Amino acid sequence: MDTTLEIDREALAARRARVAAHCGRPALIAAGAPLPRTYTANTWPFRAHSHFLYLVGAHLPGAYLLLDDDPAVYAPEPHADDALWHGAATTFGDLALWLGLPVRPLHFLEERLGPMTATLPPADPRTCDALAALLGRPVRPETVAHVDEALADAIIGARLVHDAYAQRGLREAAEATAAAHLAGMRATHAGVRAWTVKAAMEAELARRGMGTAYGSIVTPHGEVLHDEAHHHLLHDGDLLLADVGAETRGGWAGDVTRTWPVRGRFEGAQKAIYEVVLAAQAAAIDAAQPGVRYRDVHLAAARALTEGLVALGILRGDVETLVAEDVYAWFFPHGVGHLIGLDVHDMEDLGDRAGYAPGLARSDRPSLRYLRLDRDLAPGMAVTIEPGFYQVPALLARCADPRVDRGRLEAFGSVRGVRIEDDVLITAQGNEVLTRAIPKTIAEVEATVGG
Amino acid sequence: MDTTLEIDREALAARRARVAAHCGRPALIAAGAPLPRTYTANTWPFRAHSHFLYLVGAHLPGAYLLLDDDPAVYAPEPHADDALWHGAATTFGDLALWLGLPVRPLHFLEERLGPMTATLPPADPRTCDALAALLGRPVRPETVAHVDEALADAIIGARLVHDAYAQRGLREAAEATAAAHLAGMRATHAGVRAWTVKAAMEAELARRGMGTAYGSIVTPHGEVLHDEAHHHLLHDGDLLLADVGAETRGGWAGDVTRTWPVRGRFEGAQKAIYEVVLAAQAAAIDAAQPGVRYRDVHLAAARALTEGLVALGILRGDVETLVAEDVYAWFFPHGVGHLIGLDVHDMEDLGDRAGYAPGLARSDRPSLRYLRLDRDLAPGMAVTIEPGFYQVPALLARCADPRVDRGRLEAFGSVRGVRIEDDVLITAQGNEVLTRAIPKTIAEVEATVGG
Repeated sequence: MDTTLEIDREALAARRARVAAHCGRPALIAAGAPLPRTYTANTWPFRAHSHFLYLVGAHLPGAYLLLDDDPAVYAPEPHADDALWHGAATTFGDLALWLGLPVRPLHFLEERLGPMTATLPPADPRTCDALAALLGRPVRPETVAHVDEALADAIIGARLVHDAYAQRGLREAAEATAAAHLAGMRATHAGVRAWTVKAAMEAELARRGMGTAYGSIVTPHGEVLHDEAHHHLLHDGDLLLADVGAETRGGWAGDVTRTWPVRGRFEGAQKAIYEVVLAAQAAAIDAAQPGVRYRDVHLAAARALTEGLVALGILRGDVETLVAEDVYAWFFPHGVGHLIGLDVHDMEDLGDRAGYAPGLARSDRPSLRYLRLDRDLAPGMAVTIEPGFYQVPALLARCADPRVDRGRLEAFGSVRGVRIEDDVLITAQGNEVLTRAIPKTIAEVEATVGG
Repeated sequence: MDTTLEIDREALAARRARVAAHCGRPALIAAGAPLPRTYTANTWPFRAHSHFLYLVGAHLPGAYLLLDDDPAVYAPEPHADDALWHGAATTFGDLALWLGLPVRPLHFLEERLGPMTATLPPADPRTCDALAALLGRPVRPETVAHVDEALADAIIGARLVHDAYAQRGLREAAEATAAAHLAGMRATHAGVRAWTVKAAMEAELARRGMGTAYGSIVTPHGEVLHDEAHHHLLHDGDLLLADVGAETRGGWAGDVTRTWPVRGRFEGAQKAIYEVVLAAQAAAIDAAQPGVRYRDVHLAAARALTEGLVALGILRGDVETLVAEDVYAWFFPHGVGHLIGLDVHDMEDLGDRAGYAPGLARSDRPSLRYLRLDRDLAPGMAVTIEPGFYQVPALLARCADPRVDRGRLEAFGSVRGVRIEDDVLITAQGNEVLTRAIPKTIAEVEATVGG
């Protein structure tokens, strides 16, 4: 156990007290277990479930937090062979000092549980099965029991507004993410494959003891929103889109996208579109203020993007009408961002219960169906702001709207996809762009790419 | 789908024909599905189950191979949203051309299955559940059905002896693994953390589009056999143990350990122990010949190690007796190696059924209980050869054998753990060390470390 990870015991105790008070009943939260890559003993690195991490602060495989009148961690006892294969185990006493709460053997857990103990089902079925066995009732993501909803709401209430400890984690993630993007820009040259740039970016995280918060997207095909392929060869005229974010040792996520020219210089059409997306992002960041509904942040980006596309002659008509009738969504078919925290889409395991305020629901409009967040912003919330412009062949093939000038669009054929994304902390005064150190203007990007 | 991965369709067809003939009944093999890191949509990179990969050659999430009188892949049809998020799907026709076998929609699969269809349970429970639903019977790793044993044996028979296509994969893994170890030696300096060296090693794999075959071990605490912590600071007098192997895009594993001095020079005690382990490895490699039982390869390493430790005065007595009575196991408590292929411990999902020849079973002797392989070697088999010397406090605390000279041992306190591991292909003439390009002698290692 790497007990050199710094833990803020007071902040964690305050989080636990708050969640327990709002939940109003005992709650059991699983850390989870390592997942197999191939056979059982060959696993992915262990990463605790985010609710556990939020309340305990450490990755403890196989452990549980029980929040009742005597909160404690229940952990598996070391196997006799562990000292040989995994080194001397940290004693429960030392673990307790590190974590700031009692640590007890797992076999004492069951007797403390009752049918009214709340829990939340993690994504991995083995841990769901373990929870179900402990609680004597089904535990599956698709069946959140009524007794668990109070816990979900208590956790959402806590995790939605980042305390100072959480903000330190987000800043640490932002700083490492910035180093990764700088390294990626510098490693870009025509003739290499996208995975070479990805390697340079992820190595910056790895040499800080960090990994990525999600599967990196590094691709000359920015129009594929979640392109998981990295084999594409980079050509001189390509734009490279890199959506890469750090995960700190404590589990906090960064999530940043930059789009840069492989040859280090944007050509005319690329420059024009890039400026439009940049203006849309600036408008959205300006809009992201306490008290503002997040859907209006999305619409601020949509309006600025539409203005830019009208000015370029790609869209024709009145800006407000084009926005109201979703015409921009042919080029910007996703939401402007989402919550960020211990998960890159924070608390997405709880579905729209976390992202949407009570009373609000997801729209089925083409411009809003992928919007993952619709709440009034408040100081301490952290969100991404990530507008884009994409020419998605499968979408445009269905577009017969005469307000889209297909002839004019041909002049922008060298722009398959542009996205610009930063992580933004809402503050009492307005907001702070946590990832502002990363080159973003055309001049900054051109000065960095290729060394 | 990255269809630029080169596939040897003829070799794959030959593998399928061979497995089908030996199995003697229809067989269903699952590729598996991506596993969640945090919430369901945030997954680890997809890596197909090894049996599927062996017979189909490609990572196809959610697909199945049905080996019956009309072998085919059954794959999920793209969702309507996929073109936006994941790009235009490769058509089933193009997939079929690439793979060299028919590809059909998944919903045609169930009607072709019967109660006598054999399968093998993968480590991930979600895929087990899917197989159970398709076959109408329980499918779990802990309950291999009788009908499935014929399939297990047919696959073991095929995968045990690597065909030319498999050997190309192993060579590719060995070459990338060599580059990683060179980079790691060059990146080593006192004052950095182990994760910095690990980052340099894994970046060499990543810039080739590869990942690791298992969680890398990079640690100054070589005495912790599977040390998963990477935060240790490297000090001038430390030995650093790095057990890191590539996984090629096609899924083939490398598995190499080197141990090198942080300051670039072995001091006296380190040099002495290193030479003993190196001699033990040389003896084992010499012994790894066709027709030789693998346990005798282990014992060749044990004998050479014991000779060396007697010469150093750490062990006292007659070498044959010290070997026969397991005295060396206080310092070399694991097996000398294992099968390697698409899994780093090849086919470990099938347990000792793969590693142990029929009629042989695992010994409970301290020197052999962790030996993962005991078969007669044959041309085409690939194994690791990885003897070591460790001072494991938890083990030595229990050692009261007077033939271990504890006073003398104190002179070797600077040597916590040394392991030297290569990947060896058995040939008709003897063997070939696939990873021979990696610095290994004291002179080679000292010439490389630190730049």
